[in-house]
Amino acid sequence: MSARPGPNRPTLEDVAAYAGVSRSTASRALNDDAYVSAPARDAVRTAAARLGYTTNLAARSLVTRRTGAIALVLSEPEAKVLDDPYFGAVIRAAYAELSTHGGQLLVMFVDNHADVPRVVSFLDGGHVDGALVFAPHRGDLLPGALGTLRIPVVFGGRTHSGRRAQHVVDFDNAAGARLAVDHLVDQGRRRIATVSGPAEHPAAADRLAGWRAAMRDRGVRGRNLVESGDFTIAGGEEAMRRLLDRAPELDAVFAASDPMAAGALRALAAAGCRVPTDVAVIGFDDHPTLAPATTPPLTSVHQDPREQIRAMVEILLRLTTGQQVPGERVVLPVSLTIRAST
Amino acid sequence: MSARPGPNRPTLEDVAAYAGVSRSTASRALNDDAYVSAPARDAVRTAAARLGYTTNLAARSLVTRRTGAIALVLSEPEAKVLDDPYFGAVIRAAYAELSTHGGQLLVMFVDNHADVPRVVSFLDGGHVDGALVFAPHRGDLLPGALGTLRIPVVFGGRTHSGRRAQHVVDFDNAAGARLAVDHLVDQGRRRIATVSGPAEHPAAADRLAGWRAAMRDRGVRGRNLVESGDFTIAGGEEAMRRLLDRAPELDAVFAASDPMAAGALRALAAAGCRVPTDVAVIGFDDHPTLAPATTPPLTSVHQDPREQIRAMVEILLRLTTGQQVPGERVVLPVSLTIRAST
Repeated sequence: MSARPGPNRPTLEDVAAYAGVSRSTASRALNDDAYVSAPARDAVRTAAARLGYTTNLAARSLVTRRTGAIALVLSEPEAKVLDDPYFGAVIRAAYAELSTHGGQLLVMFVDNHADVPRVVSFLDGGHVDGALVFAPHRGDLLPGALGTLRIPVVFGGRTHSGRRAQHVVDFDNAAGARLAVDHLVDQGRRRIATVSGPAEHPAAADRLAGWRAAMRDRGVRGRNLVESGDFTIAGGEEAMRRLLDRAPELDAVFAASDPMAAGALRALAAAGCRVPTDVAVIGFDDHPTLAPATTPPLTSVHQDPREQIRAMVEILLRLTTGQQVPGERVVLPVSLTIRAST
Repeated sequence: MSARPGPNRPTLEDVAAYAGVSRSTASRALNDDAYVSAPARDAVRTAAARLGYTTNLAARSLVTRRTGAIALVLSEPEAKVLDDPYFGAVIRAAYAELSTHGGQLLVMFVDNHADVPRVVSFLDGGHVDGALVFAPHRGDLLPGALGTLRIPVVFGGRTHSGRRAQHVVDFDNAAGARLAVDHLVDQGRRRIATVSGPAEHPAAADRLAGWRAAMRDRGVRGRNLVESGDFTIAGGEEAMRRLLDRAPELDAVFAASDPMAAGALRALAAAGCRVPTDVAVIGFDDHPTLAPATTPPLTSVHQDPREQIRAMVEILLRLTTGQQVPGERVVLPVSLTIRAST
C-alpha cells in the first residue's frame, strides 16, 4: 500500500469539527485572515496538521502567485557546500529568518552547469515566491539564466554576471582589507604580504583590491607580496611557504579567509617564525569556532552571515509583495576583531 | 530595478533560433521527448539556460501532476541536522542519486511542531512529485500528517506513527547489535555492557532489543548493564562513567553510535582502562572519518546512508510513476568493520 490518498481524504468540514470551530472560521484561519482569534487559529492549524488537511496551493498559486516558499540556491560544488561551515551558517540563518516570517525554506544545490536549466525551470514554475542565491564563481551560467525569472531574486555577494541589474547584499570586502592593513601599519609593520583567494571569486578580488589600495595610501612597500590560495587551510599553508621563500623579511600577512590564515600560521610555525613577534597575521570571516581556536588566536575581519541573510530576506519579501526597493546593492559594514596574532 | 520580467522575456522561438534548431525540435527537447538527438537536446537546453527561458511548470503540473522535484524532509532540530555529519551524508547522497535520474532535490527542515502544517501544505500543493522523509522522533506530528498526502512518501528509518501503512527503508539495527555481541563473545568477553541511544528513537530501541536478544541467546550475563546516552560524544562519556561506577568488572561495551563510542573511549582512558586489553569497545555507524580516527581505531557496525537513499529513491520513483511496490518495509543488511578497539 502506498502513501497515496485514501477515499477518506479530510475535508475543511473535518478540520472545523476537529477544531470545534465553524467552517468559515476554519477557512479564515487557514488563509491567514487577521480576523481570527489566536486560540482558534492554533486549534485549526493543529487540527489540519493532525488530519493531514491541505489546500491545493499550486492551483491557488496560479491566481495569487504566492506559494509561501522561498528557495535558497547554493551554486557551489555540492561537496564543498556541505563541508564548509560558512554555508551551514547561511542555511541555518535562512531557515531562522524565514520562519519568523512564516516562510517555507527550500534549499537547492547547483553543482555544475547541467543543473542550471532544471533549477531555473523549477524556480520559474510557480512553485516559489522568490529566491536567495549564492553564486560567486566566474563562468557560472546561473546568474545570467536567473535574469529573466518572473520571481524576484536577491544575491548574496556580487556575481560576475553584469548583464542585468541585480539585487545584491554584500559585505564591504575592500573596507575589511583596509581595516587589516591600517591595524598592521599602526602597529609598526612595514612589509605586509597577502594570501589572496581565488581570482575568479568576486569577494576575493575585492579583498585584494582593498589591500592594494590601503598599501598605496599608507605608503607601504610590498605591493607584489601576493600569493593566491583557494580559501582552504592547505592552500593558505602553501601560499605562506611561497611568500617566505620570496620575502623572508616580511613582518605581517593578511589572509583573505580564516582557513587560509590558519594554514599560514602552520607554515610560519614550521619555518620557526614567532607570531606575532616576528610576523603578525590577520584573517577574514572571524569564524566563531575557527578564529578563537588557532594558535595564537586570530585577529580577523568580522562578518556575520546572519546579517547578510536578514538583509536579503527583507529585500526579497518587499519585492515579493510588489514594493519598490531603491538601490541595487546593499553593502554591509565589517569590523576588526583583535586577538593575539597581531 | 527588480529581477522581475522585462518586456523582452524570451520565447520558445528565441530558444530555437539561439540553438539553431526548429521550433518543434526545441519544444520536443524541452519536453524530454525521446525523438531528439543528444546534440540538439544539449544545444536547446544550453540556449534555454542562457536566455533564461522556462515553461510554466505549475500550470503544467496540474495536468501532468509531475514537477520533477523531490523533497528531502529532515525532521530534527535544525541546529542538530547541520552539525551532524550523518545528515550531511544523507543530503549529499540524495542530491547525487536524484541527479542521475534528472530529479530536482529540495531540502526542507522541520524544526518543531509549528513547521508541520506549512511543510505539509507545500508538499501537497502540487509542487513536488514525492518526498523522502527522516522523522525518527516519538511525538513528531509529521509522519501522521503526511499520511493523507496525494504524493508518495518514503521514510528513512522506522517512525513512531503506526496509524497507516508506510514505505520505509531501514537498516537492520537489531542484527547489527547481534553482530557486535557475537564478535565480543567469540573473543572471550563475558561482561558486555551497552550505551544505548535515546529510548524515543526507533533505531536506538531496535539496537537495544538486538543487544538484549543476543546476550540472552549467547547466555551472557549483564542484561542490566545498560546506560542511555543521546547519540553524542558527551552523552557517551557520561553513560560510560556511570557503567564503570556500577560495574567496574565489565570487559566490553557496545555503543549504539560512533560518537557515543568515542565518548566511552574517553571515559575509559580517564579511568585508566586499556582498550582493548581491559575493555573492548564497539560503535555503530562506521562513520568514514570518525571511526578510523579514534584512539584506538573503532570496531563499528557498518551502515551506508548512500545505500539507504538509493533504495528510497528507487521506491519513490516507482511510486511516482504509478507502479505497484510490494512490501512496506525494506531492511538493508549491515556488517561489522573490525579495528583495534576489539
